[in-house]
Amino acid sequence: MPVTLNTSDADFEARFGEMLSAKREDSVDVNDVVAGIIRDVRHRGDVALCDLTSRFDRLDLTPATMRFSADEIAAQVAKVSVEDRAALTLAADRIRAYHERQLPEDASWTDAQGATLGWRWTAVSAAGLYVPGGQAAYPSSVLMNAIPARVAGVERLVICVPTPDGVVNPLVLLAAQLSGVTEIYRIGGAQAIAALAYGTDTIAPVDKITGPGNAYVAAAKRQVFGKVGIDMIAGPSEVLVIAEGDQHPDWLALDLLAQAEHDADAQSILITTDPALGHAVAGAVDRILPSLPRAAIAGASWRDYGTIIIARNLDEAADLSNRIAPEHLELCVDDPDTLAAKCVHAGAIFLGPHTPEAVGDYVSGPNHVLPTARSARFSSGLSVLDFLKRTTIAKLTPGALAAIGPAAMRLAASEGLQAHGASVEARIRILNERPAE
Amino acid sequence: MPVTLNTSDADFEARFGEMLSAKREDSVDVNDVVAGIIRDVRHRGDVALCDLTSRFDRLDLTPATMRFSADEIAAQVAKVSVEDRAALTLAADRIRAYHERQLPEDASWTDAQGATLGWRWTAVSAAGLYVPGGQAAYPSSVLMNAIPARVAGVERLVICVPTPDGVVNPLVLLAAQLSGVTEIYRIGGAQAIAALAYGTDTIAPVDKITGPGNAYVAAAKRQVFGKVGIDMIAGPSEVLVIAEGDQHPDWLALDLLAQAEHDADAQSILITTDPALGHAVAGAVDRILPSLPRAAIAGASWRDYGTIIIARNLDEAADLSNRIAPEHLELCVDDPDTLAAKCVHAGAIFLGPHTPEAVGDYVSGPNHVLPTARSARFSSGLSVLDFLKRTTIAKLTPGALAAIGPAAMRLAASEGLQAHGASVEARIRILNERPAE
Repeated sequence: MPVTLNTSDADFEARFGEMLSAKREDSVDVNDVVAGIIRDVRHRGDVALCDLTSRFDRLDLTPATMRFSADEIAAQVAKVSVEDRAALTLAADRIRAYHERQLPEDASWTDAQGATLGWRWTAVSAAGLYVPGGQAAYPSSVLMNAIPARVAGVERLVICVPTPDGVVNPLVLLAAQLSGVTEIYRIGGAQAIAALAYGTDTIAPVDKITGPGNAYVAAAKRQVFGKVGIDMIAGPSEVLVIAEGDQHPDWLALDLLAQAEHDADAQSILITTDPALGHAVAGAVDRILPSLPRAAIAGASWRDYGTIIIARNLDEAADLSNRIAPEHLELCVDDPDTLAAKCVHAGAIFLGPHTPEAVGDYVSGPNHVLPTARSARFSSGLSVLDFLKRTTIAKLTPGALAAIGPAAMRLAASEGLQAHGASVEARIRILNERPAE
Repeated sequence: MPVTLNTSDADFEARFGEMLSAKREDSVDVNDVVAGIIRDVRHRGDVALCDLTSRFDRLDLTPATMRFSADEIAAQVAKVSVEDRAALTLAADRIRAYHERQLPEDASWTDAQGATLGWRWTAVSAAGLYVPGGQAAYPSSVLMNAIPARVAGVERLVICVPTPDGVVNPLVLLAAQLSGVTEIYRIGGAQAIAALAYGTDTIAPVDKITGPGNAYVAAAKRQVFGKVGIDMIAGPSEVLVIAEGDQHPDWLALDLLAQAEHDADAQSILITTDPALGHAVAGAVDRILPSLPRAAIAGASWRDYGTIIIARNLDEAADLSNRIAPEHLELCVDDPDTLAAKCVHAGAIFLGPHTPEAVGDYVSGPNHVLPTARSARFSSGLSVLDFLKRTTIAKLTPGALAAIGPAAMRLAASEGLQAHGASVEARIRILNERPAE
């Protein structure tokens, strides 16, 4: 049995607070190692990439073989089954359709003083997507990162994916192809992030790097941030399921386990208004768990971080949800829309019993890269906006400058910035000396 | 004379590249000191805040006197002249009007499969704004940070501003009042950032921290990032002016000097198609510079980083501008709209000769917190979006799940995540066992 809390218990606040502040991740300090790798790639370029790939991935490359050729990609992609291809294509189409709606609009207007104001969105010129190798090489993550970038209009999109011992995941290459990415390097780890940020003779630098990775990749992203943009650094994943008493315990148990099987540090939380349902779900988890191939991982997550909370009512559940600010929030209740309106801090909400979180990982359309570790209080999932930037626009007529310029002069004087004021004043003086335009 | 480059010179690429990669900032490593301050505030709370304020700001506070009382604010605000108040009010009104247009729209639609999808924007619950003390205490920065937060709908907005030796800037308090902020603490430095991120008995924690500050404040923001959201860490400011030959040299010289007077590390660049104009502007800078109260700062900036580039034509100027990705871009040309369309990487563009950058610092309406150090390639200025976050929404009917669920099951299997697939499959199986809904 996982921890079970009841909001009516005297010690609930203390125990809930403990849960909120519990650290689920061992942060290994790899900063020095990573700094060394980045320095090496900056100084020795392609030679460093080949050396490091030989050392870490047991794969001998040359600058000429770093990049997958078109033939190599085609040969790998041809290995994918018709069924897998159909599923990945359906996912890509739905993710594209969702993200196309996120494209923001430019704006321009002229105000009463004659100032034309607005903004304009433009795409990042080049973006690099990191795809982890090995067990965590999720083709779905390729779609979730590459498609928003494509939709945003990023001209050059690069993928770096390690292929330890030369092993390639054909689905990752198919996902890249479905996303329109053809520049793919078999380079991984901190060295890939360094190459993307600083460039080498073979890999031109990019402006923004996104995608998940291990501790070395995460540390490298932090270190190159500023030189390039990065997406969030994701922590362990979590799901919060809020359920009323009439829900199917097995469904809820599977949803909790789907989160738990990601990672021993993942967290699955159930809040229910019905103690009997809480008990039934705990039982269902115990019954289903041993049958999972990833039972060891899911079991550790459920044992260490699994939590069932009995709440008095759904309003209380919503309050707790807002304090948790979950990455994924599933509302298995009769009126999920009303409850969703009260849940203001969450990465993604899944409404009703027929929207298991797992469809959101793959095919529903919204992005599965979402804020973890309570950061949904202040941040959002990956979107088209992450690959765009906004330039503000201002164009004043002489009349507009005459109308609002004196206020700028006054404020510049109050801040002790005389050239600021003089740059406005010189223009207004000339206007005053000649006939009105 | 500053550096003058000509795109026709054989060594132009090399020298332009040098300029782009030049580091303008001495980054003092204060990370250990700052980590100690954060630890101290986390452990000793208000006591640490009072001790540190006494040590760094020579001001003795108690928990009861940390916060400005309503009477204290009123007394300070009453000192502001009618003219300053009018200027600040005009600025606040224009900034508010601009940012109100940035409020994004929620979306919801139902697709052909019966999936209702969309997203919803909600405000960060609590935000903390850091305002530097001393010379850099710019009331305009209070408006530029607090008003977007207010417009976004942030419920609780807190200002921390150091008052070394007890000296208060009445305009800062007026700017806070005009922005609707009443919770203001006379705490500064890394200790203020620690208090905002982790909270003390007196200062409740916030979810997002924005605002400029010195190296200690910047390091503290980096260290608390993740626990809370932060805005960008700004580097030294820069302006790029692109001008054709018929422009007034004094105006351009003043615009370059307005940037240079901010900081010895600031950079002012002129690109012109007319060598004679370049020469005239350089002369005007030399003539005007000695008359500025901040001549020492502006002179150092212009000497060390000022650059004049002679370009063959405006298309070439636009290409160079995109490589510089300037924070501020001023287009003093006959057809600024056409040129602006070609300049895709810039924080803010000021079109035409009557839009000096200085009006953008105060009163034009767009935000003056903008991406520095070439980061306009991948990031945007501060906006209402920085105080909002987006929650994605998905709600599937049983029919929608039956239509797209099998693809999710297939992909889950390919990624080895069995509980993911089972959570979908269990629901679809039940659907198949009972009459269609």
